[in-house]
Amino acid sequence: MSDSTTQRTGVWFVGARGSVATTTTVGLLAIRAGLAGHTGMVSELPQVAAAGLAPLDRIVVGGHEVADGSLAKRAEELSAGGVIPPALAQVLASELTAVDERIRPGVVAGHGSQRSAADRVAADLRAFRTEHDLDSVVVVDVSSTEPPAPEGPAALRTPEALEAALDAGEAPLPGSSLYAYAAFRSGCPFVAFTPSPGPRVPALAALATAAGLPWAGSDAKTGETLVKTVLAPMFATRALKVRSWSSVNLLGGGDGQTLADPDNAASKTATKAHGLEAILGHAVDGPLHIDFVPDLGDWKTAWDMVSFEGFLGTRMSMQFTWSGCDSSLAAPLVLDLVRLVSRAQSLGLRGPVPELGFFFKDPAGSDVHALSSQWEALVAWCARAAAAGGSA
Amino acid sequence: MSDSTTQRTGVWFVGARGSVATTTTVGLLAIRAGLAGHTGMVSELPQVAAAGLAPLDRIVVGGHEVADGSLAKRAEELSAGGVIPPALAQVLASELTAVDERIRPGVVAGHGSQRSAADRVAADLRAFRTEHDLDSVVVVDVSSTEPPAPEGPAALRTPEALEAALDAGEAPLPGSSLYAYAAFRSGCPFVAFTPSPGPRVPALAALATAAGLPWAGSDAKTGETLVKTVLAPMFATRALKVRSWSSVNLLGGGDGQTLADPDNAASKTATKAHGLEAILGHAVDGPLHIDFVPDLGDWKTAWDMVSFEGFLGTRMSMQFTWSGCDSSLAAPLVLDLVRLVSRAQSLGLRGPVPELGFFFKDPAGSDVHALSSQWEALVAWCARAAAAGGSA
Amino acid sequence: MSDSTTQRTGVWFVGARGSVATTTTVGLLAIRAGLAGHTGMVSELPQVAAAGLAPLDRIVVGGHEVADGSLAKRAEELSAGGVIPPALAQVLASELTAVDERIRPGVVAGHGSQRSAADRVAADLRAFRTEHDLDSVVVVDVSSTEPPAPEGPAALRTPEALEAALDAGEAPLPGSSLYAYAAFRSGCPFVAFTPSPGPRVPALAALATAAGLPWAGSDAKTGETLVKTVLAPMFATRALKVRSWSSVNLLGGGDGQTLADPDNAASKTATKAHGLEAILGHAVDGPLHIDFVPDLGDWKTAWDMVSFEGFLGTRMSMQFTWSGCDSSLAAPLVLDLVRLVSRAQSLGLRGPVPELGFFFKDPAGSDVHALSSQWEALVAWCARAAAAGGSA
Amino acid sequence: MSDSTTQRTGVWFVGARGSVATTTTVGLLAIRAGLAGHTGMVSELPQVAAAGLAPLDRIVVGGHEVADGSLAKRAEELSAGGVIPPALAQVLASELTAVDERIRPGVVAGHGSQRSAADRVAADLRAFRTEHDLDSVVVVDVSSTEPPAPEGPAALRTPEALEAALDAGEAPLPGSSLYAYAAFRSGCPFVAFTPSPGPRVPALAALATAAGLPWAGSDAKTGETLVKTVLAPMFATRALKVRSWSSVNLLGGGDGQTLADPDNAASKTATKAHGLEAILGHAVDGPLHIDFVPDLGDWKTAWDMVSFEGFLGTRMSMQFTWSGCDSSLAAPLVLDLVRLVSRAQSLGLRGPVPELGFFFKDPAGSDVHALSSQWEALVAWCARAAAAGGSA
Repeated sequence: MSDSTTQRTGVWFVGARGSVATTTTVGLLAIRAGLAGHTGMVSELPQVAAAGLAPLDRIVVGGHEVADGSLAKRAEELSAGGVIPPALAQVLASELTAVDERIRPGVVAGHGSQRSAADRVAADLRAFRTEHDLDSVVVVDVSSTEPPAPEGPAALRTPEALEAALDAGEAPLPGSSLYAYAAFRSGCPFVAFTPSPGPRVPALAALATAAGLPWAGSDAKTGETLVKTVLAPMFATRALKVRSWSSVNLLGGGDGQTLADPDNAASKTATKAHGLEAILGHAVDGPLHIDFVPDLGDWKTAWDMVSFEGFLGTRMSMQFTWSGCDSSLAAPLVLDLVRLVSRAQSLGLRGPVPELGFFFKDPAGSDVHALSSQWEALVAWCARAAAAGGSA
Repeated sequence: MSDSTTQRTGVWFVGARGSVATTTTVGLLAIRAGLAGHTGMVSELPQVAAAGLAPLDRIVVGGHEVADGSLAKRAEELSAGGVIPPALAQVLASELTAVDERIRPGVVAGHGSQRSAADRVAADLRAFRTEHDLDSVVVVDVSSTEPPAPEGPAALRTPEALEAALDAGEAPLPGSSLYAYAAFRSGCPFVAFTPSPGPRVPALAALATAAGLPWAGSDAKTGETLVKTVLAPMFATRALKVRSWSSVNLLGGGDGQTLADPDNAASKTATKAHGLEAILGHAVDGPLHIDFVPDLGDWKTAWDMVSFEGFLGTRMSMQFTWSGCDSSLAAPLVLDLVRLVSRAQSLGLRGPVPELGFFFKDPAGSDVHALSSQWEALVAWCARAAAAGGSA
Repeated sequence: MSDSTTQRTGVWFVGARGSVATTTTVGLLAIRAGLAGHTGMVSELPQVAAAGLAPLDRIVVGGHEVADGSLAKRAEELSAGGVIPPALAQVLASELTAVDERIRPGVVAGHGSQRSAADRVAADLRAFRTEHDLDSVVVVDVSSTEPPAPEGPAALRTPEALEAALDAGEAPLPGSSLYAYAAFRSGCPFVAFTPSPGPRVPALAALATAAGLPWAGSDAKTGETLVKTVLAPMFATRALKVRSWSSVNLLGGGDGQTLADPDNAASKTATKAHGLEAILGHAVDGPLHIDFVPDLGDWKTAWDMVSFEGFLGTRMSMQFTWSGCDSSLAAPLVLDLVRLVSRAQSLGLRGPVPELGFFFKDPAGSDVHALSSQWEALVAWCARAAAAGGSA
Repeated sequence: MSDSTTQRTGVWFVGARGSVATTTTVGLLAIRAGLAGHTGMVSELPQVAAAGLAPLDRIVVGGHEVADGSLAKRAEELSAGGVIPPALAQVLASELTAVDERIRPGVVAGHGSQRSAADRVAADLRAFRTEHDLDSVVVVDVSSTEPPAPEGPAALRTPEALEAALDAGEAPLPGSSLYAYAAFRSGCPFVAFTPSPGPRVPALAALATAAGLPWAGSDAKTGETLVKTVLAPMFATRALKVRSWSSVNLLGGGDGQTLADPDNAASKTATKAHGLEAILGHAVDGPLHIDFVPDLGDWKTAWDMVSFEGFLGTRMSMQFTWSGCDSSLAAPLVLDLVRLVSRAQSLGLRGPVPELGFFFKDPAGSDVHALSSQWEALVAWCARAAAAGGSA
């Protein structure tokens, strides 16, 4: 395989015209055009860049999308919402149109068999790789959050059972997992950027390992949970007893709308709650709300209230408010993950990459949630990658 | 020297009837009587306890104090202010009276020569050690914050120059440094719990090293700065650009009153600002206020507003409010530091112990400010201490 | 009738050992003993006191209660929770025991017929009035919040239908309404301090008017809603467009537990939402959460986030956090309402007193919600009462 | 005089290219072009519009300015800062240029005598009125805040003393007062939108009355103080005792820079503190900070912390954070005040108009600070104006 720092890398979005994919695409083009800097990109920090990562100017964007519209129009909308500087959407309009032409129709549940849908997705991935002469294509799921996968249907337990079910015309896979299946079948690593099941059903995890492919997930931590995973270790290492931790997330964007459905939100609240308990070592009381407030647009306001006990039982509290733009926070992490997962592939790694837990609320292959520990694991991994040099 | 886990340790407070010393004393007695738990005590966490620390039931308290009054009365006041459970103050009244009898009059600036004052303090320390058969006496400065030490008067540059100045009847030492001088002269380690100069003037740092004594400081981080040193690394490792960080501290207690004097506050604002700049790698705009609001009593409310920039220049913000009781947060750390510095002494360490930076806003001997890194350094130190066993 | 300012007034609590009733009782006794001031008592402000109100030292407390225990013990618990100064609970213990002896067993749903239960309650009220030679007995419902009353069963439409249903052995009345029925039957005014239906079913409203009795309600506004009803008029009169208003209420006390049941919370969220819409003149988006967080004890923390639009569509926001003790905020209002409703009775008023809307989230007989307008209506009413003099 | 609702009105800005004047001008043009609505304009609420106010499409803008640049460029800058929608600045560019041509060079202190400067300003005002055939020209001071006027120099005590001093070549007038002098001399009413002295020196107040001219001021309340004047009455009418009220204002704009100079800030902090004390009836402890944080641009974040006491001495607290855009909040009030002061002139009123206190932190001619009371006074005044009809 070629030197990692000169390799041509493809990003294939599931949900290619969503807010996160659009912001990522605009950002990539803007950086390449010298119109934007690297703020928010972890992979440009020297400790991470040291790993020898794919250059941004050799990344090609494609993807699947079920919705109509165009990237240029989505960019304008995001620009009106304050996510993207207005000038960028205008200047990059023609380049966005070029990307648009690489976006293929996504899979709509219930239209045709899952076998044929997966075959089509895999064919799209192979065609993309060939057409653009790519060393690696990383599939990134940034589509709407799905409900948690049902517990253990037999068809999802092993690759063999899964193949048999698909052959039999069954449709056992959640939508996100269908894409992960197609990715692994066509030799592509996968990034589960949302809490959707994706590659985390046992049959697919086994398939990735068998295929020698790395993957990373799930559910990027970009805001309130990010803050939690630095505050909780503070309480823990200072021996302060957290008594309740109440969280409210007000979201206006498409994700907010999806999460207004309690079934979908179940995935999110589950991954959000994981970290706190893991870090503190005990369950913590307090509500965790995710509310859709359309008026907020692409922005999110989260409020957390922590009640804790100190010496001699004295009761104290801390509150924080986070006012962030989820797409702005997510987009640079997408670029980071594409570069890092692609690097993992060039190093011959297979299965979940636990050292990428730094990016996720529910880190696959890891039970470390404290951000500082995750950072150190990531930096150490990058140093090992640096030592491994440019070829696998 | 005896096994560290059976040794008899003295705590000698400078400011023995202040809020922190009183809360520490009440807490120590309460824990010993089985009336309180260890919440807030870092030295009871397994990773730290592993170092082999002095048992709490062999710690004896004494100290100097310039103010009148009694510990029992101070405990009642703190109890009215919600710092100490009312029942404790009552139940422990007679034990507090016993401690009170070990408190000696503090040094009042301008009354007599610094030479004679230092001699008297040193004699008090030696008498305390002898009378109670203590293996180690740790002097802890919890008295009111002094202004920053003047830049480099000749008399404070070397031990020799200092001795000559004292012999000549001069009074070159800030109050806190006079106590550090006496401590080092009588073989006692020192903890600079406040931002006052204490052992940090060059002559005294040299004296401690020459005397083979460890010390730790300065300015315990117990609230807003503690939070800053976990949040700032989050922004840094996520490549988010902090544009301004504004801080307001409303304090009602004695420390608030002291800090209402801008000269005294200068020490505090300096140590509070250190960490942020060190972690982020650049100066950050924004005010840092410390205000005396008597109505708040022993409590403190701090509000911080962080304005930061993400991908494509998007501007976001985070705020937090910390509502804490400074004495409750400080007292268990005093016990931790006494045990850890005493352990450092038993290990034969001399000079500032950088691994105790975890406890301080301005860590002596270290430029590490991120709490998680400080925690790891502390845990590693404790592991080494464990390996070193019970005798130096 | 006697001069209002010398009259002997009874307070009869429904829920006489709950947090609000206990705090009110302790407070009344403490003020009378010179151990506490009038902070929080609206009826001691000169504009309200002008109405000529019953003196506090002639108020006698009694009530119904379904729970076991004693007022003295409840006072101790409230004292541990920071609601009542510890010393008060101790000093007033014997007086509390005297009140305890006047507390009768409350009505338990399903035990016996509603007819006989109502007769027993009415008998208790008459006995209390006679025994203590009271000019007026005001029944105050401070028991747990019930679900909203079912829409219009025939039996609750008119006094006649209600009597017939009770005669027929039916149980058409919600618990709170049964007490209101008994109150009106025995000549007692009523205060609906909670959002429970109480006197607001049509049959009872008609009964009160027929009996010549005044009443007031519902759902005292003591915290977050209070703040809303001063902020919303600010936005309205400044022509700023409120786009969303999100509210979170974290409650630890008994009321929190009751409200954790969505059926019961329905009453509360309904009355909390009324005011905002009435003041702004349009529905407002945004969640309204009430969460039970046991750790908070008798305290409540509410967080509100208001997103609004200004000139040229500029989007701005405001947040507030309210940290209050509900029982402390409620108790003085109970005393105020007892005095004011008793005064309304002495003035010969009948039915809901709209000018008491100042105290309530869902003001009976009024659609005014802005606190300042309610205050002016109250002050004007008191001025009229003053002019009317001491007898009806 | 013509019917107030058809009259041609001039606005003459002192500081015509500042943020507030530019936003006001853009807004006026945008509303006239049907590109923006009336959000934020009090004078469009029916209770106020009832007064019979000058139509927006007959308002002509002019002004003085000491700074170079153009309105179109300032509009672009404000658009980049999120104050003005980007499209507006572009669409209105040519109209802004037309306004620009009516802007005259402002008075620079120390250049020439105050007598000649005042004559020039007055000549500019008369020329503007004549050239545009205006019924009324209202001078509005939106220039940078000046320090408080020195206490009572003789020259500022009476019109006669002032004239004599000017004749003698002295320069007794603060800059803002020089403009007020010229306004009154040329028959123009005046709005003191900032805390600068303006018309509030005794000689000028007397001059306005003698000239039969109305004026309004001072220091528009647009954010944190606005909120204070609705919250403070809530505490007062609920008999809750405010123990401390701490305020922090972080400002990034030009006003922030001006106020970073403590001399200038003195005007602001004085007017901000007035209201609270007046409403609560007693002085309140707590700091009041105004900080310049350039990073915040045209935006402001204020944090307030109120500590209060309830029944039985229970201590509670409330915090709020206000995130607003000062220019957006101020601009519609400028249009309101121009229309209302012009109406006052048509009604023949002279001197300060106390009923316009609704708009100000330091209401001239009034000691009412509670917003709701101010609103009622304004509405009543408008009703009287309506009754008075279209001519004075």
